[in-house]
Amino acid sequence: MVTYRPPLKDMQFVLDELVDFDSLRSVPKFSELDSELIGSLLEEAGKLAVEAIAPCYDDGDKVGAQISDGDVTAAPGFGEAYKAFVEGGWPGISFNPDFGGQGLPSLLSFAVDEMLNSANMALAVCPMLTQAAVESLDRHGAESLKATYLANMISGVWTGAMDLTEPQAGSNLAAIRTVAKPIDDHFLISGTKIYISWGDHAMAENILHMVLARLPDAPPGVKGISLFLVPKYMVNEDGSLGARNDFRPVSIEHKMGIHGSPTCVMEFGANDGAVGYLVGELNEGLKCMFTMMNNARLKVGLEGLGIAEKAYQHARRYAFDRVQGRPPGGTDKSPIAGHPDVRRMLMLQKSVSEAMRVMCYTAGADSDRAEHLSDEDARAAYDSRVALMVPMVKAWCTELCQEMASVGVQIHGGMGYVEETGAAPIYRDARITTIYEGTTGIQAQDLAGRKIIRDSGKSVFALCDDIKVTVVALTKAGMSTQAHQLGQGLESMKTSVNWLLEHYANDQFAPNAVGYNLLMACSTVVAAWGMARSLLAAKARLDSGDTDTRFLSAKLTTASFFMDNVLPRAGAFAQAVTAGSDNIMGLSDAQF
Amino acid sequence: MVTYRPPLKDMQFVLDELVDFDSLRSVPKFSELDSELIGSLLEEAGKLAVEAIAPCYDDGDKVGAQISDGDVTAAPGFGEAYKAFVEGGWPGISFNPDFGGQGLPSLLSFAVDEMLNSANMALAVCPMLTQAAVESLDRHGAESLKATYLANMISGVWTGAMDLTEPQAGSNLAAIRTVAKPIDDHFLISGTKIYISWGDHAMAENILHMVLARLPDAPPGVKGISLFLVPKYMVNEDGSLGARNDFRPVSIEHKMGIHGSPTCVMEFGANDGAVGYLVGELNEGLKCMFTMMNNARLKVGLEGLGIAEKAYQHARRYAFDRVQGRPPGGTDKSPIAGHPDVRRMLMLQKSVSEAMRVMCYTAGADSDRAEHLSDEDARAAYDSRVALMVPMVKAWCTELCQEMASVGVQIHGGMGYVEETGAAPIYRDARITTIYEGTTGIQAQDLAGRKIIRDSGKSVFALCDDIKVTVVALTKAGMSTQAHQLGQGLESMKTSVNWLLEHYANDQFAPNAVGYNLLMACSTVVAAWGMARSLLAAKARLDSGDTDTRFLSAKLTTASFFMDNVLPRAGAFAQAVTAGSDNIMGLSDAQF
Repeated sequence: MVTYRPPLKDMQFVLDELVDFDSLRSVPKFSELDSELIGSLLEEAGKLAVEAIAPCYDDGDKVGAQISDGDVTAAPGFGEAYKAFVEGGWPGISFNPDFGGQGLPSLLSFAVDEMLNSANMALAVCPMLTQAAVESLDRHGAESLKATYLANMISGVWTGAMDLTEPQAGSNLAAIRTVAKPIDDHFLISGTKIYISWGDHAMAENILHMVLARLPDAPPGVKGISLFLVPKYMVNEDGSLGARNDFRPVSIEHKMGIHGSPTCVMEFGANDGAVGYLVGELNEGLKCMFTMMNNARLKVGLEGLGIAEKAYQHARRYAFDRVQGRPPGGTDKSPIAGHPDVRRMLMLQKSVSEAMRVMCYTAGADSDRAEHLSDEDARAAYDSRVALMVPMVKAWCTELCQEMASVGVQIHGGMGYVEETGAAPIYRDARITTIYEGTTGIQAQDLAGRKIIRDSGKSVFALCDDIKVTVVALTKAGMSTQAHQLGQGLESMKTSVNWLLEHYANDQFAPNAVGYNLLMACSTVVAAWGMARSLLAAKARLDSGDTDTRFLSAKLTTASFFMDNVLPRAGAFAQAVTAGSDNIMGLSDAQF
Repeated sequence: MVTYRPPLKDMQFVLDELVDFDSLRSVPKFSELDSELIGSLLEEAGKLAVEAIAPCYDDGDKVGAQISDGDVTAAPGFGEAYKAFVEGGWPGISFNPDFGGQGLPSLLSFAVDEMLNSANMALAVCPMLTQAAVESLDRHGAESLKATYLANMISGVWTGAMDLTEPQAGSNLAAIRTVAKPIDDHFLISGTKIYISWGDHAMAENILHMVLARLPDAPPGVKGISLFLVPKYMVNEDGSLGARNDFRPVSIEHKMGIHGSPTCVMEFGANDGAVGYLVGELNEGLKCMFTMMNNARLKVGLEGLGIAEKAYQHARRYAFDRVQGRPPGGTDKSPIAGHPDVRRMLMLQKSVSEAMRVMCYTAGADSDRAEHLSDEDARAAYDSRVALMVPMVKAWCTELCQEMASVGVQIHGGMGYVEETGAAPIYRDARITTIYEGTTGIQAQDLAGRKIIRDSGKSVFALCDDIKVTVVALTKAGMSTQAHQLGQGLESMKTSVNWLLEHYANDQFAPNAVGYNLLMACSTVVAAWGMARSLLAAKARLDSGDTDTRFLSAKLTTASFFMDNVLPRAGAFAQAVTAGSDNIMGLSDAQF
């Protein structure tokens, strides 16, 4: 049974009030995008999510993808669901119109992706990876490659897969061993790749693998890695499909969750080698990969949002249905949602989902501004803002989505531990999100090293300045409690950043040791900043006579709840940061 | 493969240094229990856990318990493991010698249970429930019932089960409908019970169900509930087994974890009614249940400890085996344990497991003192200390064990999400612990209502005084950083308690609304108190010339890590408490 209902009202509120959509409308090709148009787009996408994508979720979890004789079969219903997605024209909404895309802001694809993730994350991973492949090809591929492959990927007729990890090369891509031997205009690839999501299936006519490999004489480490496009079926001059290329899935993983998403071990070159084409420059594969990594990481943050929202809705329905006990002021016939502790848990889920939405969509709008604004300085400023936000969006939304899925189980009580009620699968699905596309530890390292130390904090202090503006605005608007709370949070954030900047040079362990707590301190405050801006926007609407008091007053309360119950964690994270690395690194190996 | 190794050294350290074992030795029957004797007992129990109990864990998870034709079959190997447990004489170590028990302090059964839980929690649940049944029967049962049943339960030849929950009566036992019709000297029970762990199996010759039910004319609500002993097989005068009683398991739940523990739906009285015998007074079933609930809740806290320790050891092995990336100051051949963020996660697991151990064992020793000390006032004081500690031990150890199991998955990276590596099953098992034997929300309500408001904070402030003594001792010992940290934590705890005491009378929602954060604030500080006492004890040993510097200096670092990284959360919880219930209760139902 599909219980998910797209939270269109909140999505639209965020798009209308919190992402400065007007700045995007200053871009000529986006000038016609008014709120109404966006609303109908979201409504249509919501229908797709509920009617076509969500119904096969249960079979995805229970039956899952299967492999036999080197071919993967998607879970029951997934093929039809994917077909509806393609036929609706959804795969290409934010892509290059030259190749059939609709050229809308990627912000709108964020909103669509949120709904797909809530409906069926295991399936949504497939187009998400295709998007990533499209991006790297569009940005780095030769014109001839683009001409041959891009249109069918953008339309979704073909899907994409990302082949990075090898058994000995997980978080450390430098250790990649897959070999690409140059032959004429192409390369012959051989090696084993693991954890290849949607590495094989029959939902699409062809699958384009973006494979990291190294030439036989390439320099060692990351400076010898190149990126190759390796199609499942060769493509003839006339665009028709030819012979099957020399690679196969050899097994799929038995995972805790997202059973609908086949995670393949891929073997390339069992015979002569799989034909692949260079994307970008030789030995610059990692750079090409990183272009797309930013977006892919934001998209995993959106998975966190999708899961948190789904967990909330699922628990909400149970909490208002299940009658148990007599809450204060209630009767024996009261649903458990009347118990203050259950209400606290629902508020936690609701407020965190809403905070994630502001955080994700803001990052989405910023990345559109970084790409499309006419002013070069503005583009550069947004570019570094997005770079700064990527690890926060990825880590915070995924860490918190696991907590929210757990709260969903808890609200169900004993029923939550039983698979059939559907709270458990959300919990199991959620657990992958802090791992793939860079673990939380990798995000922490990215934030501390590349995003804070590298520019001496310039970018993060610019963000702090923006948060300070909101603190001032809260005071002006008479919300002194929340102004104080956000101000305290901001101090925790600054304290954490300053500690890092003061200590990294003399303590080689510092960035990685305190990175997690630094990341969580900063992103908790950024999440609260989004809720503070929501508070101000809702209050402004109410003050201007907007009569939708049900939604707007709920926003005031939900945002205030977040300030009371979630933001204080920033202080705890900051205390851990300033305690430094001594006790973290204090034990010898033998003392563990 | 069994990777678990009983942490005998730390267990012995806690028993020797932190639970005031001398006060137990003042009890004549415990006077001979020296450290060496305890050491050999733990060593033997550890062998049992590793050699007999742990090996069937994997089959428990993968194959699980099965039901067919109304009979449950335990997972492969479970019967043999249980037999070894019984033949070793372990079931009765802390029970009444009049019925074959060994009469040791229950503290020692806590230590044994920790190891059983680490080895195979799904199996360990069975004797844990038998213990609970023994306790209620020993304390409340008529002599004739005790004579017939107790010896075989204490020896483990028969097992016990607790039948509380019904579909409409989960956290709210007042709604129980199962009927007990009086006939001669017994009762005929009919009704349906759900979530009955180990409700059926063939590992033991008989199963004694402790069933909550109400007489046809009983008063409504909790005041009409009585407790009955209902044997699977009738017991003849000569002690031999007779006919099968009129109840059956009708299905077992398909759960997220602990697949080795059959969770039964039990149907009583499909024919004439199941023969049951009253335990305790009529209509006082809930009282009898609560006697045993305290201990059962502490035992679930021990499950949390067992799981946290297991997750730590499992992740530790992986972290020191897996080579990936170059940590600061390391080489390409370094295991991931060299990466500061991985080390942080290992330290988190290690320190939290150790904190749980101090917390659980201290509560175990306190409950022995409450039962056995000669001085009546002292017994009463320990009795209220235990009552206060029960919700904290239960909630903190179970909430944190889930976080630690999650950290274990995270340390494994992608391998953690794949079932075969064994990190995922620990994560799935852990999830039940905050639900059964009273959810965390129920523990919070217990702490706020029965344990703090009822005595106007007397008991909790006595605990605060004890913590204050440790703060002073830290200062005296020259550990001013930790003294300051614990002092801050203590302030957070007092602030939370005072807020509750000042507001509950005027805000009916307050105790339940802020209860969770109050509980977490207090228990975080109590956990830190245990680590602070560990710090002092380790330092004292080092100062006195103890040469085991490897263990003792590790303890200093680990305890300090806990103060840096975990204790600060208390401040965040306290801030949430003092924010009150307004925003928690602020939305109308329609606004969710």
